[in-house]
Amino acid sequence: MSTINHKFELAARPVGLPKPTDWSYKQEPLPEPGEGELAVRVLYISLDPAMRGWMNDRRSYIPPVQIGEVMRALALGRVLASRNPKFAAGDYVYGPLGVQEYAVTDGARLGKVDAAAAPLPVYLSVLGMPGLTAYFGLLDIGRPQPGETVVISGAAGAVGAVAGQIARIKGCRVVGIAGGPAKCAYLRELGFDAAIDYKAEIVVKSLRQHCPNGIDIYFDNVGGDQLEMALAQIARNARIIICGAISQYNATIPPKGPSNYLSLLVNHGTMTGFVVADYASRWGEGLRDMAAWLREGKLKSREHIVEGLENFPSALLMLFSGENHGKLILKVADA
Amino acid sequence: MSTINHKFELAARPVGLPKPTDWSYKQEPLPEPGEGELAVRVLYISLDPAMRGWMNDRRSYIPPVQIGEVMRALALGRVLASRNPKFAAGDYVYGPLGVQEYAVTDGARLGKVDAAAAPLPVYLSVLGMPGLTAYFGLLDIGRPQPGETVVISGAAGAVGAVAGQIARIKGCRVVGIAGGPAKCAYLRELGFDAAIDYKAEIVVKSLRQHCPNGIDIYFDNVGGDQLEMALAQIARNARIIICGAISQYNATIPPKGPSNYLSLLVNHGTMTGFVVADYASRWGEGLRDMAAWLREGKLKSREHIVEGLENFPSALLMLFSGENHGKLILKVADA
Repeated sequence: MSTINHKFELAARPVGLPKPTDWSYKQEPLPEPGEGELAVRVLYISLDPAMRGWMNDRRSYIPPVQIGEVMRALALGRVLASRNPKFAAGDYVYGPLGVQEYAVTDGARLGKVDAAAAPLPVYLSVLGMPGLTAYFGLLDIGRPQPGETVVISGAAGAVGAVAGQIARIKGCRVVGIAGGPAKCAYLRELGFDAAIDYKAEIVVKSLRQHCPNGIDIYFDNVGGDQLEMALAQIARNARIIICGAISQYNATIPPKGPSNYLSLLVNHGTMTGFVVADYASRWGEGLRDMAAWLREGKLKSREHIVEGLENFPSALLMLFSGENHGKLILKVADA
Repeated sequence: MSTINHKFELAARPVGLPKPTDWSYKQEPLPEPGEGELAVRVLYISLDPAMRGWMNDRRSYIPPVQIGEVMRALALGRVLASRNPKFAAGDYVYGPLGVQEYAVTDGARLGKVDAAAAPLPVYLSVLGMPGLTAYFGLLDIGRPQPGETVVISGAAGAVGAVAGQIARIKGCRVVGIAGGPAKCAYLRELGFDAAIDYKAEIVVKSLRQHCPNGIDIYFDNVGGDQLEMALAQIARNARIIICGAISQYNATIPPKGPSNYLSLLVNHGTMTGFVVADYASRWGEGLRDMAAWLREGKLKSREHIVEGLENFPSALLMLFSGENHGKLILKVADA
């Protein structure tokens, strides 16, 4: 193999919103896989808000990406050649392959996916990390009961859209907050009981209108003002699920904490954070349920696919401007 | 009876720290108890940080005190005369009797206490709301496990001192945060493993030193900067108990929320608020345990008693300046 690999390496720690120059686009010959290794053609790269956090030089749930390292990303690929007995050429694999065309890896953190069971991009969406994040956050932390009111911020995003659909499956009333009429229409199409357009409505008023008995579960992907408005409307024994805070990831000053967190005290509320890795031992259970719901048509997956590895920087920024509709995925090569 | 009753009525909504003129000191003849009512001589009045919140005109877990109403307070008294079959003259009773010398009430919210079983002030301390608050907050929300590290802010206060002692009884390492060497010495006397003097130490450094494996349970009575410093040091699966936020009760600008609340996300942490009334159906259980621990010498109660109803305004302010040592109680009359 004298294959040339193109890749994005982290070049600088971004201040605020990442700039294209925070990565360097490089090419180098792909090494042959050594004993126990395999070579993978990257096909689809998952673009996730969490990637912004990985670029900071800060203690978190996983180490930061180092300057000069390939930008970390979850991706789906096809095995080209394998000297690892667990994988064979032609296998489809999923894992942290990075923002590049090819990866040579020991396979320790890769899983196989069944390309016959679902379209490949779905493994980066409902049947991947976003789906599992929604599943465990909503069910394990939220413990939704039929008839409860669930509000989801960033509801048209990859995680929010799944969380809302699962809440509907569990018999809850679901209100989504999203930006713009197209996303709100999408939420209604997914079966949300109400959609609040935060760009056009007074969110606090719409929340009051759509949640006359308060919010039982708030699934938060956004943080900032929306979290504060939700806290002001929680019902007794409310559960707030801290899944993300996309409004704060590019902040250059310390993010604003929710100044009314004492609403938890008044309402016997609870606010719990998590990352999907906390539930690694139970991913199988989540994937089984979600695959069944997909087959039964109860759960829909929508992907927004941008083509071309070279478009990585601008594609990633779509997450922060809210331009993507559905799970944002970078397509690198045909399956 | 031509008894004259002296009392403090709410006269104005305080802005910031309450001023003596926020109450008016009045006297009027005590009415005779009607059918079903009883007259009570107030002996001891509990002074609690929560009273500051009751003075605000704001939706909370109980309605605000209205202007012209007797200032709300939990108190302990002796029944003088009763036309209520549940109470007899000479009974000792506990409940929201208010900041006054006498109360005429239907008794609906009063409980009897056994003056032979414990000194009367203890019923406003370990065997009263502060004790129950500590008990249910720590045990029900904190779920302490032997060997875990528990940090308590406002640790020398009425609630904090009990919470710390219960955590010790449950086999935890307990670190208390308090202001000044006398309070810290008191914490060590109560069996706390370490005491941090926030007026003399760099709290974040001392927390790191005393909690090398992070904080498993943070019992928060203070809010503000101390909450933020604790969030920065939580261990995986940490439980933060939001019991109060005395640093914020007199704030004239919206209180600061914890800007690093995403530490919950990184550490799978949870932050839960409560008020003691949430556990009303289980108070008996808490009082039984605490009475036993008091008898066995495992739990100590300390009261700081100020004499004279007329000293109510200045006595209450001691809570916010941190001048009290032990549960602050206003003594109105001899038993």
